[in-house]
Order: sequence, then structure tokens, then C-alpha cells
Amino acid sequence: MKILFVGDVVGSVGIKAIETYLPEIKKRVKPQLTIVNGENAAGGKGIKEPDYQKITRAGADIVSGGNHSWDKREVLDFIDDPKKNILRPYNFSGDHVPGRGYIEINVNGKKVDVINMQGTALMQPLDNPFIAADKLIDKLDKDAIKFVDFHAETTSEKIAFANYMVGRVSAVVGTHTHVQTNDAQVINKQTALLTDVGMTGSYDGILGDKKEPIINRFLTQRPNKFDVDEDGRMQINFCVVEINDKTNYARSIKNYVITPNNQNFLN
Amino acid sequence: MKILFVGDVVGSVGIKAIETYLPEIKKRVKPQLTIVNGENAAGGKGIKEPDYQKITRAGADIVSGGNHSWDKREVLDFIDDPKKNILRPYNFSGDHVPGRGYIEINVNGKKVDVINMQGTALMQPLDNPFIAADKLIDKLDKDAIKFVDFHAETTSEKIAFANYMVGRVSAVVGTHTHVQTNDAQVINKQTALLTDVGMTGSYDGILGDKKEPIINRFLTQRPNKFDVDEDGRMQINFCVVEINDKTNYARSIKNYVITPNNQNFLN
Amino acid sequence: MKILFVGDVVGSVGIKAIETYLPEIKKRVKPQLTIVNGENAAGGKGIKEPDYQKITRAGADIVSGGNHSWDKREVLDFIDDPKKNILRPYNFSGDHVPGRGYIEINVNGKKVDVINMQGTALMQPLDNPFIAADKLIDKLDKDAIKFVDFHAETTSEKIAFANYMVGRVSAVVGTHTHVQTNDAQVINKQTALLTDVGMTGSYDGILGDKKEPIINRFLTQRPNKFDVDEDGRMQINFCVVEINDKTNYARSIKNYVITPNNQNFLN
Amino acid sequence: MKILFVGDVVGSVGIKAIETYLPEIKKRVKPQLTIVNGENAAGGKGIKEPDYQKITRAGADIVSGGNHSWDKREVLDFIDDPKKNILRPYNFSGDHVPGRGYIEINVNGKKVDVINMQGTALMQPLDNPFIAADKLIDKLDKDAIKFVDFHAETTSEKIAFANYMVGRVSAVVGTHTHVQTNDAQVINKQTALLTDVGMTGSYDGILGDKKEPIINRFLTQRPNKFDVDEDGRMQINFCVVEINDKTNYARSIKNYVITPNNQNFLN
Ligand SMILES: [Fe+2]
Ligand SMILES: [Fe+2]
Ligand SMILES: [Fe+2]
Ligand SMILES: [Fe+2]
Ligand SMILES: [Fe+2]
Ligand SMILES: [Fe+2]
Ligand SMILES: [Fe+2]
Ligand SMILES: [Fe+2]
Repeated sequence: MKILFVGDVVGSVGIKAIETYLPEIKKRVKPQLTIVNGENAAGGKGIKEPDYQKITRAGADIVSGGNHSWDKREVLDFIDDPKKNILRPYNFSGDHVPGRGYIEINVNGKKVDVINMQGTALMQPLDNPFIAADKLIDKLDKDAIKFVDFHAETTSEKIAFANYMVGRVSAVVGTHTHVQTNDAQVINKQTALLTDVGMTGSYDGILGDKKEPIINRFLTQRPNKFDVDEDGRMQINFCVVEINDKTNYARSIKNYVITPNNQNFLN
Repeated sequence: MKILFVGDVVGSVGIKAIETYLPEIKKRVKPQLTIVNGENAAGGKGIKEPDYQKITRAGADIVSGGNHSWDKREVLDFIDDPKKNILRPYNFSGDHVPGRGYIEINVNGKKVDVINMQGTALMQPLDNPFIAADKLIDKLDKDAIKFVDFHAETTSEKIAFANYMVGRVSAVVGTHTHVQTNDAQVINKQTALLTDVGMTGSYDGILGDKKEPIINRFLTQRPNKFDVDEDGRMQINFCVVEINDKTNYARSIKNYVITPNNQNFLN
Repeated sequence: MKILFVGDVVGSVGIKAIETYLPEIKKRVKPQLTIVNGENAAGGKGIKEPDYQKITRAGADIVSGGNHSWDKREVLDFIDDPKKNILRPYNFSGDHVPGRGYIEINVNGKKVDVINMQGTALMQPLDNPFIAADKLIDKLDKDAIKFVDFHAETTSEKIAFANYMVGRVSAVVGTHTHVQTNDAQVINKQTALLTDVGMTGSYDGILGDKKEPIINRFLTQRPNKFDVDEDGRMQINFCVVEINDKTNYARSIKNYVITPNNQNFLN
Repeated sequence: MKILFVGDVVGSVGIKAIETYLPEIKKRVKPQLTIVNGENAAGGKGIKEPDYQKITRAGADIVSGGNHSWDKREVLDFIDDPKKNILRPYNFSGDHVPGRGYIEINVNGKKVDVINMQGTALMQPLDNPFIAADKLIDKLDKDAIKFVDFHAETTSEKIAFANYMVGRVSAVVGTHTHVQTNDAQVINKQTALLTDVGMTGSYDGILGDKKEPIINRFLTQRPNKFDVDEDGRMQINFCVVEINDKTNYARSIKNYVITPNNQNFLN
């Protein structure tokens, strides 16, 4: 099975990039399952139902989330709709938080569990994702493919998590930093890892936002508002994981970017 | 001018990787200047004089640092030696901290200022590196090439810094996360950026350290000691920046890794 | 000289507490100078000109600030007005930030410098306040009394700062945690210290805010909005420092609270 | 029932203070139960068996802990000894961590559960203490008195926790900042709160450590080693909670310090 994963969609340029490139990418990759992280789809912060609609209409089967999932209150209107394949991080304590942290879907007769976790190193506290994953995987179908979007800040937590999960999940792909890493690998010939997939949105801003306000925040050391970059040229960052349906081990993982300066993938 | 920059050397495997690969890399790249980040050379934490010697003997002209520069007290024995080209982050307040934050060297008649800065987002507090850089660049020779090792955690601070410095420095390369990013670019045809160069050391551990203790720290949530991985196979992460000596603008930046599974660069 | 300092005024209940108690307190204490921290006066976050007016009309000579000083954009309308005695933390880098970090006033022929600093431990990065204070005090009049509102999170940074300043400033009073500490002391018979003065506002909420949203944020681990408590009963937290005008050393520091359950001070 | 709680014992001066003052305090207070936080007993960091012995021999029934509980490896030698009443924070995930987070003891026929929790705001991530407490209290005896040492950095987390627990536990006393707060109260006539009890150790240092190294760390912004102050004069910080054995509600809470300058309690 081939799974396509697209990094954090940021604002209207991100959605335009999804609409422009995702059908084209799918034509070439022919994935059986397509996952897109959408935590920044709504103006750079959060996600609303129309964003979800556009992303799925363009070809996503599942939309995952992260720390920004809650930034727009409108997410609460549809995050519990069982017909919508939208995820938020799994490892919230108790039952005070709406939404689902994993979704099991049937892909041509093969079960796939797509899991969304959030790291806690240099982020807000949540339940320990390592131990939350231990418990979750114990209760999931042993024969199902398991694919994790691990939304986290530090490289150490993401890489440690993938190593801890070796042989138990097919892939761990990191999100949140909005910059793709160059370390795609299959650990122990079992579990694919890409520390961060990167982002999908403006190529001309900083992480999808306008440059000026971000630079100003660092200069003034005051809490400035960030503005999503609605005018920039598009980029899309993604990876493709190939999984052996018999063993559920990853065969390969490859990462890609399409930017105004790099259209190699499309040629 | 071509400048070669090698990411954080971690422990004895890192030094072995430098000794094994750096001469070979230099033969192919033919850089006029070679910079190596050495903050983790001494057993994964800090740097001692013998580490510095080995790194420079293998071909480094300048050894830069970061938050770990101070981990071994022995660094104080040689960090102020004017004959040693060793850097620590520039942006410490006042004059309470030994060592230098930039070094000006003459490369075939062309002045090059190599600058080491440390970020403050999700790191310990230091002087604002944006404003420290403003002041430093004002006092440096206008005609000198300026090359910055920006040692920082977050992608936003590194990318914002490079954008703030556009046209004023030739290159900003990030270090600290130990994972190479896939976003090498020349901003505005002036300033080269690679958000993180990655690390040099064990390919089989986590960021150069042994896997077990790091995983255990996340599992137990207690402050475990990390052990550098002294047994793993080698990897080296680096980049090459080409600079126009007339304009001091970067022409290109290319990032590379050599791992047991990827020896493309050597072929 | 007696200086009266009142802890962070939070929202309309805080302003009502100032209007209710400050004249009464001044009648009893007879301070020559009254300073009130106003960073939370405007609905719990920031300060607007009408808040400043009410606080000064009720008897404050100087209104100091903190990390929340910038939360309301309207502060920019009057923070640079030389006729208004409003402070923001001193230790911002460069000249990108409006407002003043210290104010020198003449109190019956004696110069007093009121200084506002912000800590950096477990807070956003700013310039090192220890070194910023070194430089500032060097340029101030040697014969002036110096009084510092040190706005910081950790006890260690506040106490270390006071100890570092011993003999150089008359008093260091902490603000920011909104809870008064029970450690008023004169270090070395020279410099008064109270690690935190506490807050002025609702006695029935949590730090001046409504209980429910704060508890919910901890329960849900999501970024909830806090609501200032506009209905609670009033409390005011303050301290009085007595300073020897000849030596500029503190003679004494005493901390007080007035709450619905504790009106001792007024009897 | 009267419960006496003593704040973090720091180093040998802290233990001397316990040995000197605790018997005297108990003679006056006549508590039925005495709890002492011992996370810093062993040279300022961690606790070893001889420290535990001295603290209990001086009169403690239970020794609680915090983030520093693990600093000395020797704690592992006795933390699981069922005959020793030593606590570590309860809210670690899974079963990877030795020791107990609560102890139920019988005090004159009345069950008392002493619970140790650790906060997660501006501290390392642990399980959500609010939700961990929900679950723990559900499984404890409904008729038992419950007393919580909440070891945390921020005032907001400690006060929010006490308010969340109102009516369910008899008392929440905070530890960790080493500075006693001046806000002892019984919330809703049910649950006693003191945001921080403070520390027990050198009166002449900073939070029990020597002044110089702490000031130097702030000045140099480098990771200096702290040295516990072994020479200073003693102080002890504590509080007394009186509980109605019928309702399990707190009747009163009073906080005290004994320092070289304040021996009021003993007179
Ligand atoms: Fe994102
Ligand atoms: Fe994120
Ligand atoms: Fe490093
Ligand atoms: Fe580093
Ligand atoms: Fe405040
Ligand atoms: Fe504040
Ligand atoms: Fe402590
Ligand atoms: Fe602690």
C-alpha cells in the first residue's frame, strides 16, 4: 500500500496549492490513502468546515491536526461528525476534549489506523505520547497498518518516538515545524520516519505567514499578531510511504517538495 | 568563494567521521574556507582542546559552537587562545563570558567574518540575536563576506533571522537540531539559507546519542543521563555555499549527507 | 522617605479596589511616593489611558508595567506622552519599543529613579536584566534613590537580582505572580526585597480572573480565553518601604493585604 | 485533626533546622500528622536514605517529594520500601517509575491519604494532575481525609487545582518555589490552600543555595553548577491545617516562618 502524506496546509495559498497540486501528485503516485495535515488551513490558525471540504474534495481521505486545531471555534461544529475524517491529537487526558485521535479506515479490504499524536517537549503539556501510544496500539487490530502523524517541536522527541514504535507502526511522519527535513529512512527495515514533512502554503513568506510581522516580533520581543501570507507563490511538501501489506513494514519513504523553483516532481 | 560548513560533530564517532570524510569532501568541493560546528565533540557535550585539534587537523579552519560549548570546563583552557579559531555564540550580554563570537580571517586577500549566534526562542535567554547582529554588522568591514552559524531550536527564528539579514550577510546556516532540513535556498538572490545543517556522528543512534537512554527519558519523564553513541556507523551532514566575491551575495547553497546508506556524494 | 507600592491591578474590580482603598491607605501610610503596577488594568490584559487616569487620580504617582503592558494597542497612544508617568520594562533590546523603562522624579527635593525590569527565566527572552541594570545604574545619579519593580516569574531570578543589586538600589519588589509572598526583608541592611507584592482585583477569582475558564484550560489542555472577574469582592496587595534619605538604604519593608476577610490594616 | 506541613528541606542546614525546630514546633502545635517535603535534602538535590532517616527521626510521619526527587540515584534504594513513608509525585504515566504517589495512613482510627502531585505549567511534562487527581480520588476511600502537596511552579496552576478540588480534598499546599506565600485561606469553607509553603534551610543564601553561583548563572547565562549553602543560619517554613474529622473540611490554615530575625512562633 502507498500512503501519501501532505504537510501542514497554511491559509488560502495552502488550500490553493492543495487544489492545484494534489490531483496531479495523486495521478503520479497512485496512493491508496491520502492524509493531509490541516491545522493551519483557516487563515493560518485552525480549520473550519469549508477548509476541510476543500481539502477532501481535492483528494484527501483524512485531515489530521495539531496544536493549532483549536484556534478557530468553528472546528467544534464538525470535529465530532462521524462522517468527517478529521483528526486532532490523541493524547489529551480524560474526556474533556471533543474529536478523535485516530481513525480506522478500510482501504481495499485492509484496515489502516491513522493516528495523530502531539509531542510534549517544548510544547504545552499533554499526556505522555509514548505511553498513550503503547495503550492505543494494544487495543487496535494487530493486523492493521498503523500510520502516525506525530506533531511535535523537537527532533529528539520525534525520532525517539519512531524508534520506540519500531515494528509496531508502519510509519511516523513529523509535522509542526513547517520545514521539511532531509532524513527519510526506514528504521530497522520496519518503520518509516521523516522527522518533519514541512508545510504547504506560501513559498514567499516565513512558514506560510508574512515575513514582516514575524521579523518584527523577534525585533520588538513583544507579542505581535502574525498574518498569514495570502499573496505568495505556492509550495507543497509531502512524502510517500510504501508499506508491505503482509508484514505491515514500510518498504520505503520518500520526501518531496514542489516550489516555484523546483518543479522536478512534476516533470 | 566556496565555503564548506559541517554540522554539529558529536562524540568520537563524529570526530572519526570528520577524519574519514572531511579530507575527501574538501578534495571534491575545493572550498576556500571550512567551518565545523564542534559543540558536541567531547563525548556529546562540549569540546576539549584535543577535539579541537583533531577537527582542525582534519581540515577545519574555524570551529563554531552553541549552547553546549560550555559543558566541559576544559573549554576555558583554550577558548581565549588567539591562535585558536574557536567560536562561541556572540550574543552574550556584557563581558562576563570568555571567548569570541566572531572571527575575521583573510582568505586569499578577501576578508571573511564568521559569526556564531544563538537563538532565544525555546532556548535559554541571551541578548536578542537580531539586534546583536545589527550592531555587530555595523562595526564590521562593509566589504567583508559575512557567514553566520545560527544555533537555534525553532525554524521560525532561524528563517526570520536570515530574512532580516538579507543582503547584509552572505549566508545563514542553522545548527542545533541535529537533523538536516531540505530547504536550501538563496533568499532574494542575496543570502543563502539552510534552516539546519544536521549533525556528524553516529548514524545508528538518536541525534548522535544512544537510543535507549533517550527513549527511557521520554518514557519515565525523569531526567536521565544521555550517553553518546560511541559504536554506531558514521554519518556526516554538511553544505556548500558559493559566494560572489564582488557582491558578497550567495550564488548557491547545496546540502549533503553521507550515511552508510547514502554514499552518493563520494561517487 | 516612604514609598508605597501596589501590586498588579486587574480589571475593573482592581480599579475599584484602587479607588476604594488607595486614598485610605495613603492617609495612614503617608508615603512620599506611590507606585502602582497597572499591566492588567484593562480587562485583565494591558492598560488604556482611562485606566491610567483612574489609577493616578486615585493617588498613584507612577504606573509600572510588565509582560502584559502591550496587550491593548491603545497603550501606544499615551505610553510616550512625557506628561504621563507610565513605565514598561526597561530591558528591551535596541530602540524598537516605545515607552520608558525608568522615570526620575523629584520628591521634595530628593531624586528618585523608579525602574521597571522584566525577568527572563521561564518568560519570553529580553535583554539580561542583571546587566541592563548594571549599565542603567551607572548612568543614573549616584545620589538618587533607586526603586525597582522586577516583573518576573521565578523566585530565584527575583531574589538573585535583589542580592546582586544590594547596596546599589533601595528596594526590589517583585510582581507578576499575583500572589503576595511572605518574605519581606532588608538584605544586608541596605536593600529591601519582597519577592512578590501580589495583585489588586477580585478576591473571588483566580489571580483576578474568573475561576471557570482557568480551571477549564488546565482540564482541557487547550488554549482557552481567560475572562477577568468583574463581579468578585475586592482585594488589594501592597507594601511600604521606608528609606533613609541620607544613605539611600532601606530601613524597613512591610507587606499588607486587605481582603474581605482581612481588614486589619484599616482598623 | 491537625496536620503540620514543612516546606522543602534543603541540604544539611535544612536537616539541622528540622532537627532543631521540628520537635519544638510539634510540642506547640500538637499535630496528629506531620509531613515534610524532602526533595532537596541531599545536598540541595534529591534525597538519600540517611536524609530520610534524620527527617523522620526528628518527627516527620511522611516525606514528600517533587521534581528533584530523582536527582540522587540512591533514592532508588529505598523509595519502594513499603516500611518507608516516602512519596514522589503521583502523576507519572504508566508504570515506568518506582515509588508511590500517595500513602494512606491511619491516624487514631481516621484514614488520611497524603497525595503528592506535580504541576506541568512551566515544568517538565507529566500526566495532567487535574485529571490524575480526579481518577485517584474516585478510587480512594470516600471517608478519608485527603491532603495534597502540589509541587508546581506557577501560582495559577496551584490555585486552580485547589479550586478544582474544593470539597473533595481537605487541603492543597504548594511547594517548589521555596518562598512562602501570604495567601493562606479556606476556599468555600472546605479546602485549605497555601500557594507555597516555602523552604527549610539556609536563611542567608538564595532558596537554600549559595548566592554567588546563582547570581553568576544569571550574569553569565551559562549553565553553572549550584552549590547548596552549608554554612548559613537556619530558617524553617511551615503551615498548620486544622480539619473537621466529621466533614473532612478544613477549619483553618495558618502559615509560619522561623528565621534568625523572626522567632515569634517560639515565643
Ligand atoms: Fe502547523
Ligand atoms: Fe503545529
Ligand atoms: Fe549540537
Ligand atoms: Fe545545540
Ligand atoms: Fe500581572
Ligand atoms: Fe505579568
Ligand atoms: Fe524544592
Ligand atoms: Fe522542586
